[in-house]
Amino acid sequence: MAEQRKPRGPVDRTVPPGDNRERLVCGDCGYIVYDNPKIVVGSVVRHRGRYLLCRRAIEPRIGFWTLPAGYMELNETTEAGALREAWEEAQARIEIEGLLAIYNIPRLSQVQLIYRARLLDEAIAPGPESREVGLFSWDDIPWNEIAFPSVNWSLDADRTLGDGVPFRPVTNPPGNVGNLTQGGL
Amino acid sequence: MAEQRKPRGPVDRTVPPGDNRERLVCGDCGYIVYDNPKIVVGSVVRHRGRYLLCRRAIEPRIGFWTLPAGYMELNETTEAGALREAWEEAQARIEIEGLLAIYNIPRLSQVQLIYRARLLDEAIAPGPESREVGLFSWDDIPWNEIAFPSVNWSLDADRTLGDGVPFRPVTNPPGNVGNLTQGGL
Repeated sequence: MAEQRKPRGPVDRTVPPGDNRERLVCGDCGYIVYDNPKIVVGSVVRHRGRYLLCRRAIEPRIGFWTLPAGYMELNETTEAGALREAWEEAQARIEIEGLLAIYNIPRLSQVQLIYRARLLDEAIAPGPESREVGLFSWDDIPWNEIAFPSVNWSLDADRTLGDGVPFRPVTNPPGNVGNLTQGGL
Repeated sequence: MAEQRKPRGPVDRTVPPGDNRERLVCGDCGYIVYDNPKIVVGSVVRHRGRYLLCRRAIEPRIGFWTLPAGYMELNETTEAGALREAWEEAQARIEIEGLLAIYNIPRLSQVQLIYRARLLDEAIAPGPESREVGLFSWDDIPWNEIAFPSVNWSLDADRTLGDGVPFRPVTNPPGNVGNLTQGGL
């Protein structure tokens, strides 16, 4: 919990004392780089019956269409991360309406939190990681050029939910984000 | 996405090409250690109106009581991680009933997915990270010796939900865990 931020020397794979799995450990200072699953945050963004998609300008799956989504950064919340990704990839200002789905991709050690959101402003534009952005009606979605299976799953989940209300998970009590005096679990 | 698993030389903080934030980068091979938020998975485990708690045998907050919860490991799903933690910390076999809460601790770059679960077997025992485990009625919970605020929040969330049904988030379509041929988002 009181991890240092940086190994000082060469690191190697070994089982630290008291642990039961191999970790990356610095030979000089004993710093342990825990290689943990990564969180992807993103959203199905709707606007007047159409869906916001971004055509990827980067690998993997360059040229294919995806949702505005990406890896969470340090020191942000999941919802803030989804807002940031919509801005970075599509210059889109969005409002999150609720949680649509949680996908697990254990092969990639990835957990995806996908929100349903609405577009606040039609002025969208490709960010540095997108070649093109667009709003598509369901039938016009480029189904043959979708980047990842979870994009299909997310769109299907949104379609299934339809006019339903997405889940608003219980979250931190008011006033308890970012100013805790004790650690987490 | 096609990350190597190990830096070969000394690492330093720098902004990689095409990125907009400092990362840990190996000076020899260019390996980038993305320092991402960590996922904590855990559960409020109930058994005949009592709650399973574990007294911590490790820092931080050694000697204080917590839920069975901890960092997700690579190549597991969130629910599998919660089952593993219950086993490792309390030798408890549990069944997950649904998602109780999502807590964000941005100061620690932590996202906590807390499930509601029921105990399948009364045979519980402290694992290596617990000094003691116990089943407590609400009034007997050692409220003055709780390890972390999110333990209180989780117990409160469970109490508030009461006889309600916890959320079962939409998740991967059947047959689509761990055998995907394409990457995630």
